[in-house]
Amino acid sequence: MRIDGRKNEQVRSTKITRNYTKYAEGSVLIEVGDTKVICTASIENKVPPFLKGLGEGWITAEYNMLPRATGNRKPRDISRLKLDGRTMEIQRLIGRSLRSVIDLKALGERTIWIDCDVIQADGGTRTASVTGAFVALIDAVNKLHKKKPFKVYPVRNFVSATSVGIVGDQKVIDLCYEEDSKAKVDMNVVGTDEGEFIEVQGTGEECPFKRSELNELLDLAEKGIKQMVQLQKDSLKMDALWIGTGESKK
Amino acid sequence: MRIDGRKNEQVRSTKITRNYTKYAEGSVLIEVGDTKVICTASIENKVPPFLKGLGEGWITAEYNMLPRATGNRKPRDISRLKLDGRTMEIQRLIGRSLRSVIDLKALGERTIWIDCDVIQADGGTRTASVTGAFVALIDAVNKLHKKKPFKVYPVRNFVSATSVGIVGDQKVIDLCYEEDSKAKVDMNVVGTDEGEFIEVQGTGEECPFKRSELNELLDLAEKGIKQMVQLQKDSLKMDALWIGTGESKK
Amino acid sequence: MRIDGRKNEQVRSTKITRNYTKYAEGSVLIEVGDTKVICTASIENKVPPFLKGLGEGWITAEYNMLPRATGNRKPRDISRLKLDGRTMEIQRLIGRSLRSVIDLKALGERTIWIDCDVIQADGGTRTASVTGAFVALIDAVNKLHKKKPFKVYPVRNFVSATSVGIVGDQKVIDLCYEEDSKAKVDMNVVGTDEGEFIEVQGTGEECPFKRSELNELLDLAEKGIKQMVQLQKDSLKMDALWIGTGESKK
Amino acid sequence: MRIDGRKNEQVRSTKITRNYTKYAEGSVLIEVGDTKVICTASIENKVPPFLKGLGEGWITAEYNMLPRATGNRKPRDISRLKLDGRTMEIQRLIGRSLRSVIDLKALGERTIWIDCDVIQADGGTRTASVTGAFVALIDAVNKLHKKKPFKVYPVRNFVSATSVGIVGDQKVIDLCYEEDSKAKVDMNVVGTDEGEFIEVQGTGEECPFKRSELNELLDLAEKGIKQMVQLQKDSLKMDALWIGTGESKK
Amino acid sequence: MRIDGRKNEQVRSTKITRNYTKYAEGSVLIEVGDTKVICTASIENKVPPFLKGLGEGWITAEYNMLPRATGNRKPRDISRLKLDGRTMEIQRLIGRSLRSVIDLKALGERTIWIDCDVIQADGGTRTASVTGAFVALIDAVNKLHKKKPFKVYPVRNFVSATSVGIVGDQKVIDLCYEEDSKAKVDMNVVGTDEGEFIEVQGTGEECPFKRSELNELLDLAEKGIKQMVQLQKDSLKMDALWIGTGESKK
Amino acid sequence: MRIDGRKNEQVRSTKITRNYTKYAEGSVLIEVGDTKVICTASIENKVPPFLKGLGEGWITAEYNMLPRATGNRKPRDISRLKLDGRTMEIQRLIGRSLRSVIDLKALGERTIWIDCDVIQADGGTRTASVTGAFVALIDAVNKLHKKKPFKVYPVRNFVSATSVGIVGDQKVIDLCYEEDSKAKVDMNVVGTDEGEFIEVQGTGEECPFKRSELNELLDLAEKGIKQMVQLQKDSLKMDALWIGTGESKK
Repeated sequence: MRIDGRKNEQVRSTKITRNYTKYAEGSVLIEVGDTKVICTASIENKVPPFLKGLGEGWITAEYNMLPRATGNRKPRDISRLKLDGRTMEIQRLIGRSLRSVIDLKALGERTIWIDCDVIQADGGTRTASVTGAFVALIDAVNKLHKKKPFKVYPVRNFVSATSVGIVGDQKVIDLCYEEDSKAKVDMNVVGTDEGEFIEVQGTGEECPFKRSELNELLDLAEKGIKQMVQLQKDSLKMDALWIGTGESKK
Repeated sequence: MRIDGRKNEQVRSTKITRNYTKYAEGSVLIEVGDTKVICTASIENKVPPFLKGLGEGWITAEYNMLPRATGNRKPRDISRLKLDGRTMEIQRLIGRSLRSVIDLKALGERTIWIDCDVIQADGGTRTASVTGAFVALIDAVNKLHKKKPFKVYPVRNFVSATSVGIVGDQKVIDLCYEEDSKAKVDMNVVGTDEGEFIEVQGTGEECPFKRSELNELLDLAEKGIKQMVQLQKDSLKMDALWIGTGESKK
Repeated sequence: MRIDGRKNEQVRSTKITRNYTKYAEGSVLIEVGDTKVICTASIENKVPPFLKGLGEGWITAEYNMLPRATGNRKPRDISRLKLDGRTMEIQRLIGRSLRSVIDLKALGERTIWIDCDVIQADGGTRTASVTGAFVALIDAVNKLHKKKPFKVYPVRNFVSATSVGIVGDQKVIDLCYEEDSKAKVDMNVVGTDEGEFIEVQGTGEECPFKRSELNELLDLAEKGIKQMVQLQKDSLKMDALWIGTGESKK
Repeated sequence: MRIDGRKNEQVRSTKITRNYTKYAEGSVLIEVGDTKVICTASIENKVPPFLKGLGEGWITAEYNMLPRATGNRKPRDISRLKLDGRTMEIQRLIGRSLRSVIDLKALGERTIWIDCDVIQADGGTRTASVTGAFVALIDAVNKLHKKKPFKVYPVRNFVSATSVGIVGDQKVIDLCYEEDSKAKVDMNVVGTDEGEFIEVQGTGEECPFKRSELNELLDLAEKGIKQMVQLQKDSLKMDALWIGTGESKK
Repeated sequence: MRIDGRKNEQVRSTKITRNYTKYAEGSVLIEVGDTKVICTASIENKVPPFLKGLGEGWITAEYNMLPRATGNRKPRDISRLKLDGRTMEIQRLIGRSLRSVIDLKALGERTIWIDCDVIQADGGTRTASVTGAFVALIDAVNKLHKKKPFKVYPVRNFVSATSVGIVGDQKVIDLCYEEDSKAKVDMNVVGTDEGEFIEVQGTGEECPFKRSELNELLDLAEKGIKQMVQLQKDSLKMDALWIGTGESKK
Repeated sequence: MRIDGRKNEQVRSTKITRNYTKYAEGSVLIEVGDTKVICTASIENKVPPFLKGLGEGWITAEYNMLPRATGNRKPRDISRLKLDGRTMEIQRLIGRSLRSVIDLKALGERTIWIDCDVIQADGGTRTASVTGAFVALIDAVNKLHKKKPFKVYPVRNFVSATSVGIVGDQKVIDLCYEEDSKAKVDMNVVGTDEGEFIEVQGTGEECPFKRSELNELLDLAEKGIKQMVQLQKDSLKMDALWIGTGESKK
C-alpha cells in the first residue's frame, strides 16, 4: 500500500481545465493530485534567429515554480540572477517533447511559447507540465487553424508524460513528493498515443538499477501515458480531431 | 457610462479565496474583475542582516506577473537578468503598506515573506495585491498566534487599496486595463479601516492635475478602501477579531 | 524650531549653476542645503524601439549616488549586479515628471537622456534632481531650438519638486537627512508653475496619516514648488522665455 | 558502413592519460576518437551549506567547452552572463552519475570538484566526461586513502558511459558529431562494471521511437559500457583494487 | 606647438581642492586642465576575507566616469551588467599604486576604500585619479592618526602620476583627450617623491616604439611627477609632515 | 642560483606545437616550463559594430584559466557572473599587442578571435599567451592568404613577450610562479623581431623601483624576446616568410 492509499499502477486523480486564463491562445490548468500547473501557449509571429528565412516554426518552453509552490519558500531565480539547473533541464524536456510531434515546416514561420508555471508542487511537476502543455498547444494551434486552415495540420501525435520509480522495493507510477524524495530510482517518460517513446530519463542517484527493473518501470509508464492521453482526448473532444491527419505523418 | 457598464464610483466584483494553496502559512486568491492574484505569506524564523539581534521582525514583499498574464507575452525577468522598474516599485509599495500597520517588535525575530503572483492582469494588480496580501498575512500571523499567543497581537489595522483616476473627463474608481491605458491621471491609494492613508501615489504622466481634482479622487478612493476593508472582514470573519487589539496601537 | 534653525515652511538655501560641465547639452549643479546633484541632459538622435517610426521623442532619466555621497559608503550597483529599488523608483519619477510637460510630438524623433548624479546627499535628492534636471533639459532643448527652431516649442510648463513631511508633531518642508530619518510621514510632490501637481507621493511607513494632515502637507508643498520655480526662472532668465509658448499647450 | 568506417557496435579508439596536469589531485585526458576532454578532480575540505555538520561528503561537477572546441567558435558563457541549458544538463548528469556509486558518509566532510573541460569536441563529450572523470576521481580518492586510509573505501563501483542512437535505419554506438547531428534517436547511458544502469537518457527529438528500438539500443550500450570499464581498469591497474571493497557496498 | 599652446614638457594647470564633500574621511577634487575627478577615501573597520586575522590593512580603489563626463554619453556599467575592461584596469592601477607606499601592517586591520569618480574627462583621468587619491588617502590616514597616533605612520612616500606620449613626432607630457586620441605611443607613469617608479605602462597600439623613445618619455615623466608631488605638498602643507617618518621605511 | 637551477638571464624550456586542435584556423599549444596554454585563432567574416563599413578588420582576444590550472581550484567566472580584473587586463594586453603589428585595412572586414586557455599555470601565462597566440594568428592569416592572397600581407612584424622581475636582489627573466609570488618588481614586456617595444608594464607593488633597475630589466627583456621570436621562426618555418613583406610596413 502506498502512502496515499493508491495501488502501484494507479495514477493520481487528474483534471484538465481549458481556457483557464483569458489572454493566452491556449491556457490550461492541470491538476495531478495536489500538483497544479498553469500551462499557456502563446503565438508569436516570428522565429528565433537560427531559423530566420527557413520557412519553419519553433516551439519553446519555459518552466517555473511560484516561490511558495513547495513546503519551503524557494527564492525567485531573479534574486540569484541565475536560472537553476533543474529548471533548465525541465524546460528543455518540455520543449523537445512537444517539438518531436510537430511538423515545424507545416507550422510556418511562427514561434509557440509554452509557459508552465507551477502553482502547487507535490511531485511530478515536469510530467504534468508536458501533459498540460500539449492541450494548451492544441488550443493555440487550432486558433490558427480555424482562422486560416493549415495545408498540413502540424500536430502528428498526442504527447503525454508520467513518472515511475522504485520506492522501497515497489515499482510505482506517478510518485507524489513524499515518494519521490525516498525513491531509489526515478524515471520520467514521455510518450505518444501510439505507444512510442519521446523521452526516457531514468536516474539511479542513490544506487544503480538493473535492466529488468528498467523494463518493469517502462511497462508501468506505458500504462500511465495511455491513461493521460485518454484524459487529453476527453478534455479536447472535437478539438482533437485534426491531430495526426497531416500528410507529413511518419 | 464606463466601458464595462460600471458607475464612476463602483468597484468591480471582488472575491477573496483563502487557503488557495496548501503549503503557505497564508494563501489567498484575490479576484478583482478579471484581475487575479495569488498572494501567499510565508514565515521564516530569521530576519535580514540589518535587523539581526534587535528583537524585531520584518515584512517583505515580492511581486511578479506570469508571462501571459497580459495580452502580449512578457519575457520573464530572468531572461533579461533584470527586475523591471515597475515590478520593483510595486513590491516596495506592498511591503511598506503592510509594515505600516505591523508592530514589528511584537512580531518578534521572524520575517514574513509576501509573494504576489499575478495570474491574469486587467488593471489594478498592485492594489489587488495589497488587499489580498493583507488577508494572507493575517492567516500567517494567526497560525503563529494560535500556536503560541503573542503578548501583543502585532497587527494594528486593516490595510486595503484601490486605484482611482481621470479617464476622459470622468473621475472613476478601480480602473480596468482599458481605462488605465487611457487615464490622464492615475492614483493608487492604500488606507486603513479607520479612514487613514498609508500611501497616496498620484501621477499625471500625460498632463498635470489640479488640487481640486486630487481632492475628488481622494474622496472616491476613501469609498473604495472602505468597501475593500469590508470584503476583508467578510472573508476573515472571526479570524479578524484580534486585529487592533494590541496595546501598542497608536 | 528645526534641527538646522529653519522655520517649518522654509526651504534650504538653494543654488543652481548652469553649464557645470562642458560636454553635455545641458549641465547643472543644483545645491539644496548640503544636497548636491549634477544634472545633465544629453541629446541622442534616435528613440527607443517602442517609439520607432512614430515621429515622437522620448525623455528618460537615470539617477545615481556616488559611493560616498552619504555618511556610510554605499557599494556601487555594479558590484552587486543589481540596481536597487530606491534608485529605480527615483529615476522613474524624474523621467515621468519631465515627460508630463513635454510635447513629445513637437520634440521629434530624438531622446533626451537625463542623468542625475548625487555628489553629496543630505535629504531631498530626488526632488533636487527633478528641479535641477528641468533646467538642464531647457538648456538642451534650447540648444536644438537655437540651431533650428521647433515649429512648436516642446516644453509646456516649468517643473519643480519639493519634499514635505511630519517630523515629531510638526509639518515641515524640504527635510534634511536627519529630519527625513525621523519623519512619520514623508511626501514628495512635483508640480508646475501654474500650481498643478504632476506627482504626489505620500508614505506613512511608520504609521498611517489623516486626510487633514495630507492637506496641510500639500499646502506646504505648493509654497515650496512656487519658490523652486522662481529659482529656475532666475537661473534661466531669457532662456525660459519660450516655455509654454507652443500651441500644443493644454 | 558508418561515416568513419566503423561497425555499428564499434566504439572509437579511446585513450586515457592519467596525471595530465600537475596540480589537481586527479587529472585525466580522455580521448574518444577526436573528442578530447581534460577531467580533473579537486579535493576541498568543506561541504556545501546543505550538508554542513552531517558528516557526509559531496561530489559536484562542472563542464565546459573551450570556445573553439567545435567547428564554429562558441562565445564563452561569461560573455552572455548565462550558463547554457545544455551545459547545465551535462554537468548535473556527471555529478549524479559519480555520486551514485560513492558512499558519501565514508568519504567524510569534504567536496570533490570534478571539472570536465572539452578541448576538442567530436560527439560524445558528455559520456567521455563521465568515463574520464571517474578515473580522475579514483586518483583523488586514492591520494586521500594513501595518506590516511578510509575506514570504508568510499567507491563502490566503476562508472562508465557511452552514447547510442539511430542514424538512418541503423542502431549505432558512440556517435561522432556528424552522426549525432543526423540521429533520429539519441541516447546516453551511464552504467557500472556490474552491468547495472545509473542513467538512461533517450530522446527522440525528430520523432518518437518504439520500445523494441529502445531495447536494441540498450543492448548496444551495455556492450559499450563494458568496453569503457575495461579501459578504466587497464588505465588504473593496481589503483583500482580498492573499488568495491567497502562494507557499505549494496 | 601643441593643440592648446603648451610646450612639450608642460603639464596642464592643476588644482587640488581638499574637503570637497562632507562625509568622506578624505575628499578631494582634482582638476588637471579640463579633467575633473572627485577622489574620496573611506575608512572601514574590517578587511577582505583573504586578510582576516593577519593584522594587516588593505587599500582598494574603484573608478568610474559619470555618463556625460565625455563627448558622447557612455551608458552606465549597470545597464550592461558588466564593468568594462578599461575601468577595471584603471582601478587596479590606482589600488596597486597606493598600496606600494603603504605599510599595511602599520595601518592595522582596516580597509581604506578609494573612489575616483570622473566628473569631466579630457585625457589623463587615471593619472589625475592617482594624484588626487593620494591626497584624499593622506587626509583619511591623518584623521585616524590624530585620533589615536599610529605607532608607525603607515605612509612611506608621496605618490603621483602623469601621462606621456608620442604625438606626431613630438614627445609630450600630460596629453589632453585630443592628443591622446592621436598618440602613437601612450605611457602612464606612477612615481614617488624620491624619483622612483611604481608603475610604468607604455603601449604602442598603433605601432611599436624604440628603447630610445621610451627613455625620452621616461625623462619627461620624471619631470611631471616631480611637479605633481610639489602640488600635493603645497596642498597638504603641514598635513604631509608625517609621510615617510615611519621606521618601516625602506 | 634560481629556484629551478636556471641562470638569471635564462628562459625556461619552451615548446610550440602547431595544429594542436582540429577545428580552429590557427591552433597552438605553447609550453614555457610548466606553463601550458592552448592558443587558437578563429576567423569570423564580420567586424564589431564600431568598425562596420570602414573596410577594416579587427583582432580581439579572450583569456581564461581552467579551474584547476593552479594549485588551488579557482571558481569559474560564470559562477560569480563576473570576469575578474586580472583576466580582463590580460586579454586586453594580448589583443593590443597583436593589433599593433597588423595592418587592419589590409586584413579587410573580418575579425580574428584569439582564445588563450591556460591548461596549467606556473607563472608567465600572459607572456606565453602572446607568444603562442602570434603563431596561431599567422596560421589563421595564412589560411586566408593561401586561399586568396592579400594584396598587402597584413602582418608587419613578429610579436613575442617575456616577463622579467626583481626577486630578492637579483634581476631575473621568465619568472616561474614561485619566483613571481616573491618578486618585488614584476614587468611584462612585449616586443618585435626588430627590437622594438609594444608593451612595457612594470609594477612595483611591494615597493617602488629605480630607473637604473628598470633599465637592467629592459636589457634582460630584450634578450628574452629575441629568443622567443627565434622559437616562433623555428616553429613557423616557411610559413613565416610573408611577415613584414607588405608595403604598408612602417
